[in-house]
Amino acid sequence: MELTKKMNVGVIGLGAMGLPMAKNLLRKGFEVTVFDARNEPIQTLEKLGAKIGHSPKEVGLQSRIVLMSLPSSKEVEKVVAAEDGLAHNMKKGGVIVDTSTIDPAVSRRLADECEKMGLHMIDAPVSGGTTGAEKGTLSIMVGGDRYTVKRCKGVLQAVGRNIYHVGDVGAGQVFKIINNMLVAINLIGVSEALVLAMRAGVDPKLLYNVVKTSSGNSWALEQKLPVMIKNNFKLGFRVWLQHKDLALAMSLASQLGASLPMASLAYQLYEATKAIGLEDLDHSAVVKVLQHLSGISSARAAE
Amino acid sequence: MELTKKMNVGVIGLGAMGLPMAKNLLRKGFEVTVFDARNEPIQTLEKLGAKIGHSPKEVGLQSRIVLMSLPSSKEVEKVVAAEDGLAHNMKKGGVIVDTSTIDPAVSRRLADECEKMGLHMIDAPVSGGTTGAEKGTLSIMVGGDRYTVKRCKGVLQAVGRNIYHVGDVGAGQVFKIINNMLVAINLIGVSEALVLAMRAGVDPKLLYNVVKTSSGNSWALEQKLPVMIKNNFKLGFRVWLQHKDLALAMSLASQLGASLPMASLAYQLYEATKAIGLEDLDHSAVVKVLQHLSGISSARAAE
Amino acid sequence: MELTKKMNVGVIGLGAMGLPMAKNLLRKGFEVTVFDARNEPIQTLEKLGAKIGHSPKEVGLQSRIVLMSLPSSKEVEKVVAAEDGLAHNMKKGGVIVDTSTIDPAVSRRLADECEKMGLHMIDAPVSGGTTGAEKGTLSIMVGGDRYTVKRCKGVLQAVGRNIYHVGDVGAGQVFKIINNMLVAINLIGVSEALVLAMRAGVDPKLLYNVVKTSSGNSWALEQKLPVMIKNNFKLGFRVWLQHKDLALAMSLASQLGASLPMASLAYQLYEATKAIGLEDLDHSAVVKVLQHLSGISSARAAE
Amino acid sequence: MELTKKMNVGVIGLGAMGLPMAKNLLRKGFEVTVFDARNEPIQTLEKLGAKIGHSPKEVGLQSRIVLMSLPSSKEVEKVVAAEDGLAHNMKKGGVIVDTSTIDPAVSRRLADECEKMGLHMIDAPVSGGTTGAEKGTLSIMVGGDRYTVKRCKGVLQAVGRNIYHVGDVGAGQVFKIINNMLVAINLIGVSEALVLAMRAGVDPKLLYNVVKTSSGNSWALEQKLPVMIKNNFKLGFRVWLQHKDLALAMSLASQLGASLPMASLAYQLYEATKAIGLEDLDHSAVVKVLQHLSGISSARAAE
Repeated sequence: MELTKKMNVGVIGLGAMGLPMAKNLLRKGFEVTVFDARNEPIQTLEKLGAKIGHSPKEVGLQSRIVLMSLPSSKEVEKVVAAEDGLAHNMKKGGVIVDTSTIDPAVSRRLADECEKMGLHMIDAPVSGGTTGAEKGTLSIMVGGDRYTVKRCKGVLQAVGRNIYHVGDVGAGQVFKIINNMLVAINLIGVSEALVLAMRAGVDPKLLYNVVKTSSGNSWALEQKLPVMIKNNFKLGFRVWLQHKDLALAMSLASQLGASLPMASLAYQLYEATKAIGLEDLDHSAVVKVLQHLSGISSARAAE
Repeated sequence: MELTKKMNVGVIGLGAMGLPMAKNLLRKGFEVTVFDARNEPIQTLEKLGAKIGHSPKEVGLQSRIVLMSLPSSKEVEKVVAAEDGLAHNMKKGGVIVDTSTIDPAVSRRLADECEKMGLHMIDAPVSGGTTGAEKGTLSIMVGGDRYTVKRCKGVLQAVGRNIYHVGDVGAGQVFKIINNMLVAINLIGVSEALVLAMRAGVDPKLLYNVVKTSSGNSWALEQKLPVMIKNNFKLGFRVWLQHKDLALAMSLASQLGASLPMASLAYQLYEATKAIGLEDLDHSAVVKVLQHLSGISSARAAE
Repeated sequence: MELTKKMNVGVIGLGAMGLPMAKNLLRKGFEVTVFDARNEPIQTLEKLGAKIGHSPKEVGLQSRIVLMSLPSSKEVEKVVAAEDGLAHNMKKGGVIVDTSTIDPAVSRRLADECEKMGLHMIDAPVSGGTTGAEKGTLSIMVGGDRYTVKRCKGVLQAVGRNIYHVGDVGAGQVFKIINNMLVAINLIGVSEALVLAMRAGVDPKLLYNVVKTSSGNSWALEQKLPVMIKNNFKLGFRVWLQHKDLALAMSLASQLGASLPMASLAYQLYEATKAIGLEDLDHSAVVKVLQHLSGISSARAAE
Repeated sequence: MELTKKMNVGVIGLGAMGLPMAKNLLRKGFEVTVFDARNEPIQTLEKLGAKIGHSPKEVGLQSRIVLMSLPSSKEVEKVVAAEDGLAHNMKKGGVIVDTSTIDPAVSRRLADECEKMGLHMIDAPVSGGTTGAEKGTLSIMVGGDRYTVKRCKGVLQAVGRNIYHVGDVGAGQVFKIINNMLVAINLIGVSEALVLAMRAGVDPKLLYNVVKTSSGNSWALEQKLPVMIKNNFKLGFRVWLQHKDLALAMSLASQLGASLPMASLAYQLYEATKAIGLEDLDHSAVVKVLQHLSGISSARAAE
């Protein structure tokens, strides 16, 4: 039976993605109970009609389904498996939908623990950025058993547009990790293209116009080459998140015995982007590392 | 004054790209004189109304404009600058349009030599593959002075759809080289994504469907992931050409003092693709090198 | 007070390194109690005068100092921290000397747990291979407080020759991991040198003789280029151990925010060496991956 | 017949290597005629008894054997093959000994041209730095036919200590290029080791002492880690020369179809070292690029 709007939906983690997702659930008529360590997003949501849960436990007690949007495996593990977490406090038959991007092995382990408690957990990492979260147009890559995923359909459709059921628990993470690994590689490719163009005296805007309609095109080029040209990296998907997702890709590759020389180089270049202090910029800021390596100063880059 | 259809157009180099370009010129009503070292394409074109030139010299003597489509700098240099080549034999005011992808420094040098003989040479490398050449929908990146490029407009529009005038002589090559460098990087990214997916037990077709609508998308993924999945690399842009274009990119980077770690890794992986005997396959065959590195045999890949 | 020969020394883990270390302790007059999951090395040592401990607990109960030589963090953690492990069963004041190469963070955590139980733990990873272990000429990189390290001096000198006290707990691991990261990079350098020499038709033995006395020399070249030339990789430090140590290096770099592009490439090439089934060969077998990438078959390599 | 001291020896190129080589020839009793574009080294040598040649031609006319020490293929080509160069002006039977490091294909081509003029040319690149040149203790890697090499024995022994006859013309270059490629890789390995050590709070001097006696050792570590620790890169083999030799290695690999991922990464990192303005420092200054990538400032590095 699908989890309908009459049932209360919990949302834990009200950051750049979790907050707009909670808003969309409210807008679509769900009863929503929310929790976050910070007060600010809670107050925002209370004004929009959300109930306040003062702990994961409280949210769990009041919800048939709980959506999580958390930064990393560590937080997910705590919210789900701690003594005062969801697994020990939700009623049997409840469902946890984890939209965080984390290690698929952790997703599988936590789902197993939930099963033992009579609960269900699916992984549903999202793609589309804060804009997608606000507009409710996220792509969602869902891993879980067919029945549970079906029960969550209404909730997922309230926050996203393209819902892909890609396999059992953990599969959503694998797809998300692979997708984000590809973005990183493509972004570094675009960075090197820009560096070569600058060194050759080519107008970067012309480069953008030409390659956009040619075989070198990619989402990374279309969306992020203009950002690199403007040299303004304030918005978007942050460097430290891109770095984290690459770490997950390398860890997955290592577990599976895959040798990925190019992804591995991408990871080291994002490590450098973090190390030189750009971790809170948009992930396209990796171009600054490549520019440094070719002796192009930021000042010159900003012209 | 634009070079009109009444003027004879020469075509030298009737390979996978040159032959369909010559056909399109005939179809659009140009008088065409052709030359190639091989008989077969010449006979094909004769039946369609082309005149035969028995040497670059003969083509040059009969043409106001000569289009070249040759494999590398060496052949272009010979056809243009040899004693019996175009520079010594075309009438003053004639134009050479080089659609080959070669070192931009060679383009510039040959254009200088042509100027001294009262001729004009522009570089106009093309993108879009054999399909684009056949349909006349190629993208063309043109480098040359404004006046000469304008004179060639009719001829360029007969073989391509998007005509970009990107700068002075050599600039067309720079754009083409950067574009093709990007394709190679993106293709290797897609290869590593496929390897990781296979190792993780993910259905590659599902990966294709999901990433195609996500931020990991690229021309390389859309056009070539299906080829990799089918494990059939017979058609398309050959490995040795991709390798040659990467060599041009690395050489350009070296001349300009650009450090390109990822492009350089891509070049080495294409070197490996050639070295293991795949040089005549489609450039997406680089996936086989990546599969080998992760212990995935071709047989398994072909399943 | 130094732990003298009259005190019983335990040895847990009797593999390629642990077995000869136990033999050396017996030879030097220590009373030795041993444990391993396999029977064979235990019987060998019993004949030489060792007592048998049937579990880590039994070894711990009978020993003032216990030497461990185990494959990875997981086994070390179990032997030290499990209910029937050393921490819960050794008498207060006892010392654990871990000669395994593991994550320094694990070393530090276990040492902390030991302190709480009134025990001391130091890390003492070794370098020098099975030959060094047999001859008692190992280099040992010791991390721990000055007093505890001093107490272990006699035991360490019984199994090694160069004893370096390099810092607090965990520092031994850091030194070992950095050293082994360097070996891997140098070995791949030697592999690429050999590949280039073979392609250039150069006699590899002559290459060896010349570079050995030139600035390109390294331990890796002196010790392992002859192995690569003979194409016989049966003995020595195994690929999977080299791979494991590189994984520790990458993990350490990641924890500390270091960007190591070359070490990271080395790791991927060792991943490939494992993936193509060479994990039990000597670590110089990485040359086979590099030879494959240049189209040199093993058969040809073996000539 | 060996070329004895009574015969005049020419030296062309009196830089950091050529000047001390000329001095050693004078010291050993050879009659020496010298040429360089700059006045200073010529005056120095005149005081020591050298004759002055005012052009390569003059040196060639007066010498049975001419030693060259020039920066790159371009200069060697000019001095040998130009109208007023050695090939057109030396007497038949004369010998050219090229101690420069250049493209082996150029060495072979020039040697062929010399043969046609009745002359002989061998390549004899040297290793050992300015110190080795001054002390006459250079290692020399000689390529040429047995008879010609034998004739040059006396001259080579006057400037070097280890004389390796490694094959036909060009082979000396191949050995030198491979050796210098190895140094670069090993230096970057040492740089990454230092970066990881600094991030881990390890004392770099202790790292040096320990690894020097372990399997991670190399000439690069022994000679250059102390330089990196002192952060003083004023003396030694310059970055731009190391970069040039890596370019030769990559070009050779490309000609021969060898895929060298690690050497290629090393080349890009030296490209970066040049690009950030360090081209005149010692080649160990590549560490500064690696330090930047891990967020370690030079100031901190200098502590």
